[in-house]
Amino acid sequence: MTRIDTAELTELATGALHAAGLSETDAARVADVLVLADLFGIHTHGVSRIPQYLDRVLVGGIDIDAAVTTERVAPGLARVDGANGLGPLVGSHALDAALTCARDTGIGAAFARHSNHFGPVMPYLYQAARQGFAAVIASNATTTIAPWGGRDARLGNNPLGWGMPRPGGDPVLLDVAMSVVARAKIRAAAKAGESIPDTWATDGTGAPTTDPHAALEGFLQPVGAHKGYGLALMVDMFAGLLSGAGYLTRVSSWNENPDRPQDLGHVFILVDTTRLMPPDVLSGRVDDFTGVLHDTPPADPRRPVQVPGERELANLHRRQREGIDLADDDLRALREVAARR
Amino acid sequence: MTRIDTAELTELATGALHAAGLSETDAARVADVLVLADLFGIHTHGVSRIPQYLDRVLVGGIDIDAAVTTERVAPGLARVDGANGLGPLVGSHALDAALTCARDTGIGAAFARHSNHFGPVMPYLYQAARQGFAAVIASNATTTIAPWGGRDARLGNNPLGWGMPRPGGDPVLLDVAMSVVARAKIRAAAKAGESIPDTWATDGTGAPTTDPHAALEGFLQPVGAHKGYGLALMVDMFAGLLSGAGYLTRVSSWNENPDRPQDLGHVFILVDTTRLMPPDVLSGRVDDFTGVLHDTPPADPRRPVQVPGERELANLHRRQREGIDLADDDLRALREVAARR
Repeated sequence: MTRIDTAELTELATGALHAAGLSETDAARVADVLVLADLFGIHTHGVSRIPQYLDRVLVGGIDIDAAVTTERVAPGLARVDGANGLGPLVGSHALDAALTCARDTGIGAAFARHSNHFGPVMPYLYQAARQGFAAVIASNATTTIAPWGGRDARLGNNPLGWGMPRPGGDPVLLDVAMSVVARAKIRAAAKAGESIPDTWATDGTGAPTTDPHAALEGFLQPVGAHKGYGLALMVDMFAGLLSGAGYLTRVSSWNENPDRPQDLGHVFILVDTTRLMPPDVLSGRVDDFTGVLHDTPPADPRRPVQVPGERELANLHRRQREGIDLADDDLRALREVAARR
Repeated sequence: MTRIDTAELTELATGALHAAGLSETDAARVADVLVLADLFGIHTHGVSRIPQYLDRVLVGGIDIDAAVTTERVAPGLARVDGANGLGPLVGSHALDAALTCARDTGIGAAFARHSNHFGPVMPYLYQAARQGFAAVIASNATTTIAPWGGRDARLGNNPLGWGMPRPGGDPVLLDVAMSVVARAKIRAAAKAGESIPDTWATDGTGAPTTDPHAALEGFLQPVGAHKGYGLALMVDMFAGLLSGAGYLTRVSSWNENPDRPQDLGHVFILVDTTRLMPPDVLSGRVDDFTGVLHDTPPADPRRPVQVPGERELANLHRRQREGIDLADDDLRALREVAARR
């Protein structure tokens, strides 16, 4: 591990993306999203993705020269065409488009198509909240979940985020996907030779399994059975179907076809909270709301009740002061890419 | 059970509500929502609720003379003050307000406060979808869930709905709450002397239990642990906190204090799909989307994969043709109320 300052990491990431062909402005947009992910502690979706993204550029799966375009189809609605550009670039443009709409009409949305993996949802939620906007932001993804009662992966583990600003303080930020666990957790169990709870995944026939190897041949299980299935599905209907992007099995798999455009879709819905109440009133209500939850007697006295995003925001504040610890391999790979310029 | 025609049930429900003091127009609004619930087969939230609602009117908990008001705070945003009226009346006005906004700006939202139990979400989703609008609709509720890691009921089992129209065909409608099961299922197990899975609820100390009696003293468990907790919480932040209504423990309990206003809140977010694609294109994409899911090889060959709302819409079509079977007690109670005029 090496500790690196936020500004230095942002400069390094921007440099790597610029070296690969993005304009300075676009490189900075993408770097901002990914560095925020690292600040939150979501390293699997942070700057370590840059070499992976650029590998896909090299094989023609992502277009580094993509010109993302925005069409305002109604005062409150924008359609964004990602033109197969880097996902966080498309996401960043879609966020801006939704902000413009929401500033004008109180609520605004951007629907993005022809996109790629756009990183975690939390950085976008945070950027919206910092400007006073409550948000619902979601994306579809490569298929890893079987529909409830089915035995074929036809649904993505689609991330769904909700954010609420607290003017003058930390927002509340929820970023969840509908599987019980991520595939990475099953891979870790397989590596460690451990069994897994039978609620995590099915084998290839759709039957629940405790064998991580069988699970990796099968499908992730959604939380709450038909409930998680339904939520993942509706996210795809908004982010994929309604945006004009691919959806379900019409989304191309990054792993299986890295050289093909994925045609992922995203949706950004933003509400200008200042139209509903003054910032200090909102802030007071969020304080009261989170206070009621924090004051709940805990089941385990050593583990007080938390609200969504609290741990990630504590990470962010600490790392903004002290720097970010990154795996040496990830940092080295990033420096190599940056040196290519 | 008695079979009754949809038109006759609507007339009976409208009559009962009008006899209780609602105007003909308002009575018809409320009846439409509740009869739709019965058509879908959601009888626990259908016309059987009318005598219960009116009991609360008698003890001063709901104001039958409430004048629901709507304030357009931005081109795409409305605030609705329910004035402690019947929940479905407030819900119906909020839906109309959101529709008006969405027609003007492509996306619109209504935030409602000072409301009461507004029935199930599915009727509103259906009414929006029939007019071509995709929807996210949610409400908060009396507290029955403990925050994840806590041992006190401080969060409602807040319903969250998503709807997608299919012009010329059946929409896709999801209406879910974040508990693993409803309390009614635990009460049924207690009555039958059966144990329950330890994933359904905790006892009063916050520990998982298989004893339904202990569970009824405890709290419902959210689906997916922190995920269901987070989603229920964010629904309350939008429906309660941002609407200006009560939230969490600030919502008054119907059961414990039937004579007090609950101050529930709702949120209606609607997207005019015609701004994004022509109706026939949308319809074709929804057909393709649901086709991919229906074609999934089922884990159990006798149980094909379904999409959300499918069962309820099949109920609706059958009952619109053949009539609705209602429990005799419910029908008798409704006729008694209607005869009071």
